[in-house]
Formats: sequence, C-alpha cells, structure tokens
Amino acid sequence: MILNRREFARLAALGLAARFAPALNAQTQEPKIGYAVIGLGRIAGHFMPGVLSTTNSQITALVSGHRDKAVRIAAEYGVPQSSIYNYDNFDEIARNPAVGAVYVALPNSMHAEYAIRAAKAGKHVLCEKPMSTNVAEAEAMIAACKAANVKLMIAYRCHYEPTNLKAIRLIRDGALGKVQAIESANGFNIAPREWRLNKKLAGGGPLFDVGIYSLNACRYLTGEEPSQISAYASVIDRDGRFNQVEENVSWTMKFPSGIVASCNTTYGANMTGFYRVHGSKGWLDANPAFYYDGLRLRAEFSGTQLDELNPARDPSHFVLQAEHFSHCIQNGLEPKTPGEEGLRDMRYITEIYRSAGISI
Amino acid sequence: MILNRREFARLAALGLAARFAPALNAQTQEPKIGYAVIGLGRIAGHFMPGVLSTTNSQITALVSGHRDKAVRIAAEYGVPQSSIYNYDNFDEIARNPAVGAVYVALPNSMHAEYAIRAAKAGKHVLCEKPMSTNVAEAEAMIAACKAANVKLMIAYRCHYEPTNLKAIRLIRDGALGKVQAIESANGFNIAPREWRLNKKLAGGGPLFDVGIYSLNACRYLTGEEPSQISAYASVIDRDGRFNQVEENVSWTMKFPSGIVASCNTTYGANMTGFYRVHGSKGWLDANPAFYYDGLRLRAEFSGTQLDELNPARDPSHFVLQAEHFSHCIQNGLEPKTPGEEGLRDMRYITEIYRSAGISI
Repeated sequence: MILNRREFARLAALGLAARFAPALNAQTQEPKIGYAVIGLGRIAGHFMPGVLSTTNSQITALVSGHRDKAVRIAAEYGVPQSSIYNYDNFDEIARNPAVGAVYVALPNSMHAEYAIRAAKAGKHVLCEKPMSTNVAEAEAMIAACKAANVKLMIAYRCHYEPTNLKAIRLIRDGALGKVQAIESANGFNIAPREWRLNKKLAGGGPLFDVGIYSLNACRYLTGEEPSQISAYASVIDRDGRFNQVEENVSWTMKFPSGIVASCNTTYGANMTGFYRVHGSKGWLDANPAFYYDGLRLRAEFSGTQLDELNPARDPSHFVLQAEHFSHCIQNGLEPKTPGEEGLRDMRYITEIYRSAGISI
Repeated sequence: MILNRREFARLAALGLAARFAPALNAQTQEPKIGYAVIGLGRIAGHFMPGVLSTTNSQITALVSGHRDKAVRIAAEYGVPQSSIYNYDNFDEIARNPAVGAVYVALPNSMHAEYAIRAAKAGKHVLCEKPMSTNVAEAEAMIAACKAANVKLMIAYRCHYEPTNLKAIRLIRDGALGKVQAIESANGFNIAPREWRLNKKLAGGGPLFDVGIYSLNACRYLTGEEPSQISAYASVIDRDGRFNQVEENVSWTMKFPSGIVASCNTTYGANMTGFYRVHGSKGWLDANPAFYYDGLRLRAEFSGTQLDELNPARDPSHFVLQAEHFSHCIQNGLEPKTPGEEGLRDMRYITEIYRSAGISI
C-alpha cells in the first residue's frame, strides 16, 4: 500500500502512520536520519539492531567512554572511526553532518546534560525514560531543545507497540464501557552493584526505572492526568542493595473522571509487568504488558473474547519508535511522546515520592 | 484416616482440622449443631446446601419476614413449622433446644442487632462478613457474645478454602522468599435497587461488600496487620445507583515488614477477584481467588511451576466453614476467624473511608 503525503498525514494524526512508514519512505526516498548513540549499555543493544530494521534511520555515530567497545560496535554498524566520540569531545558532533539526532541511553542523571549538549549541537534528541532525575532537569531539556529548534522525544516505546495501542483503542472505542479501575505493577529482583541502585545516577529506585511503565500506562490507558496521588515506599531486604534507593513503592491515583488506579513497583521481586482495566462493559488484561516482546492481551466485552499474543520479536518496539521519531524529523511533526510527556511523569514521580516521604 | 481427640486438637492448631472433621465426627458421634438461619437471601442459599453436606451441622430453624418463603424452605430442609421465626418473635428462639447456633445472613446493618439478640438467647453466632457497619457495633457484638459465653465467628470463607490455604502455606513456608508487594481487586457491576446501594442497610459501598475480600486477603497472605493505609473513592456513573454509596475505592497499605499492597474495589465493573503476591524467590497468583468455586492458583518459584484448579464446586466453601464452626462449638475451641478478626477489618475499613474523605 502506497500512501501520498496527505493520506499519510491523516494517518499520522490517527497514530497509525508508523505502520505505513516503510512504504512512504520507499516512495519518497528521503535521506535516512543518522543517530549518534550516547551510552553503549543494555538498552542501546536493543535500539541499534532496531534501527537496522527501519527504512528511515541509521546509526552514524557512537558516544562512549570505552573506546574499544565503541570501535567494535562501530565496525558492526558501519560507523566510521571518525564518528566515535567520548564524553570530552562530544560537542564536536555539531560539525558531523551525518548525525541528525542523538539517542540518549545513559544513566538517568546524565540525560539532561547530554540532551542539552546535543540540542546545542543542533541535533534532535531521542531520550530514554525516565527523562531525567527531577522536574527542573526535564524543564531545562525542553527549553534547550526549543531554543535550538530541535525535536525532543522520550523513548516511551509502549506508545508505539501494537498490543498497548490495541488496549488504548479498545478503551477509546468504548468497548469496555466506562473505565472504573486499573491495577498495574512492574518490577524485577535487582542484582547488587547495578548503577540503578546509585541514587546520584538513577535519581531513585524502581519507580524511576520500571514503575514508570505502570504510571505512564495508567495515563495512556485512561487518556487522563491523575488529579490525586498517594504512595508508600519501603525497604525489606537489608542486604546492602537498598542503602540509597527504595525497594518497593505502592501508589494509588485518582483521575478527573473518577477512575482509580493502584500500582506497585519493586526491585525485590521479578514481576511480569501487567495492567488490568475494568470497565462497566468489560475488562482487558495485558500480561506481559511491558516486556520487549511476548506481549499478550486478553479482553472480554459484550460477548467478545480476545486473547492475542503479539508475535513480533525484540527489537520490534525499537524499530517502531525510531521510525516514528525519524518520520517526525523528516516531516516537521511533533512526536507522540515529546519532552512534555516525560515532564508530566517526572511531576507525578516527584509527587509519589513526596507522598511516600522520600526526598529526591 | 481416623484421629483421636489429641491428634485432632493438634491439627486444629495448625488449621488443618477441617479436612479431617468428617472422620472425627463419624468417630465420636457427637450430636450435630443445629443452626437457625436468619435471613433467607442469596448467601443463605449457599449456606444451607453447604450445611447439608457436613457431618456435624444441620439446619433446625429459619428466621424470615416472609412466612411463605420460610415455609417452603423449611419443608426442603426438614425444619418443623414451629421452628420458623420472624423478626418480632425471634427472641423465643432461646427456648428452642434444637438451635445451638445462628447464621446471620441479613443486610449488614442488621448483623449487630441479631448477633446480640442471638447471644442473649444463648446461641452461638456465625455472622456473615462484613461483621457490621462500624467499629462500635463490632465491639458490642464481641462483648455480647463474651457476656453470654457463646462463640462468635465471622464467615470469612476463604480462610477455610483450600486454594487460599495453599497460597498462605506457600508464603509461610518461604517458597516465595521475602514477600515484597501484593495486588488485589474484587468487584462487580451492581444492579439498580440492590439493598447494597442503601447506605443505611449496607454501611457503605463495594469496600464493605467485596473489597473486604482483598483487604482480608492481604492480611492473611502476609500474616501481618497494615500499619498505614491511604485511599481514594469515586463515583463515575451518575445513573442513580450511587447516590448513597461510593462506586470505586482504590487503596494502598504498608505492613510492618515493609510489604506494600495496592487494591481496588468497584460496584461499576465485573471484576474477577484476584490477588498476585510477589516475593524475592517467586510469585503466586490466585485468579479467581474469591468466587464460590473455580478457584485457580498459579505460582512460580525456585524452578517449580504450579497451576492448580480447585475442582470442588459450590457450596464446598460453606461446608468447610460450617464444619469448622460446629467443631469449635463441640470442642470448646476458638474459631479461626473470631469476632476480633471481623473487628480488625472494620477498623481498616473505617480508616480507608476516612482517608478517602467518606464518612461512614
């Protein structure tokens, strides 16, 4: 199926553009968006193969403190050695025309600095979640990107993932009737010595890292912003892992329509991240809801029973996400998950910690 | 397997006695405990067939405002017409030696009055949950039963049900490691004009009626009492059903060990009541957890995978529950779910409503 630009813009408005993006690009032959990947850790290892499978994006530079690792990965992705940067000479990226955007995949505390430096270098910014470690940083990132006239997108991959999009669509289409309540949880049993346990690097505990999926899901599922939030946090395992950040957070939210949501997150147990949505006419259950693949959606409403497994394998979410951001850059569109979306979560995270008596 | 009394007492202390009660009764030939059923509504329709399947209990009287209905049911259960009472002549039950205990299955607001009148008539009291509509009533019920030297048990059937007992045992045995977090929900989409929507009769909304299952489950699963509770309530459907009671409640609890729990309850959506328990070494999921039958327990820990469906059909929970109470009466034992257990839930329910800004 080949779409003309007007048709595509209409689909984009409906959030369906990503499905047709390959066809569009094949047609228009626009140059691919070149990404500089900043931070070559775990998540970059999903992003880079994802970019390989797009039609509109490519890896054109790497930024790392580990030259050897960067050289090895550069060879794999056809990145010239002259496009390998470190954290000292990063700003030289401004003079590299092969780099149109950066992908910030650093520990949370470094997101703001590198997003802002990238913006100043004139590069569009795709930044991993959580956007930052506090509200002020998030605001500064938005301001810097605005001042530099570059786009800022937060890498909320679930917004581009078909199982989550289908859950949203069922709710918006009224299949569940009036949504009343949501439960969601996400967490894992963390290994000692992870940077995520270092408050200075991570900002906080599991809420920043994985609880944010439940928080964000409650928002995209309802299409509302929470009006009230209350929370508890705790540390159970006195084994040295939780000297700086909390182990568990449990929180409830009330939305303007009256929808209530209750959520848990932990670094002390392997949870299959999930959500359940209860409506007056039916329910849906995504479980797993947040993994890189294997997502399963079950639902029951008005005599209909759904049980759908998304067969796409990792890194399919990263393909869709990169394709969306590159498409926005190429076409002057606002990303579905701009900096403002990340800022909102930072505000709610701050509120959850405040309610739980934790200073961040 | 035939147990002597000492062996049985030991099992009773371990909460396993109910499994062997038929064998014991067959052995000891004690007279059955005769129950007067007060209120012939929906739940009594489960209790009475349940009693039929016990070896130590029988239905010996009925109390109802609807004589015709009572006469019909009396014929079914072999209850003489002289043992049919109404709410005016109820106290005459004191002179009926065939009645050893009463089963209070009235709207919540009438529990206290009839439990206390039954105690004054010298009858043991098995009272449906919620125990009462407020703490003061619950305290008065306990005091009246103590003064009359009769036993008081709250009909928390899940405490006698194998799937729930297995979940508790897995946790106590350490199979899940250290429990970190629990999610639970229970609710249904209520029909208009139910007495449950009348605050005077019900005390409150879904928290009293079905949310209490999640509240109680978090307590029996952890074996702890919540130290902090916070909650939100809401009404979404302005269709006349929720002029007196709330439609939704969402609450979080923190337990002394640090375990956190997040729960929802609703009268606006059909929920399959469930709980998920996340521990450092594994998880368990009871879903459905609270239905009268069809309960399913799944768990994964230390390389073990469980998926067990309890094949027993309704009214099996009521059999186990009645057998337990009758056994306690016959043997001078304290029930596993005495008045004090109901009182604790009444205190937490009060705290949840207080936190949600609802006066009860």
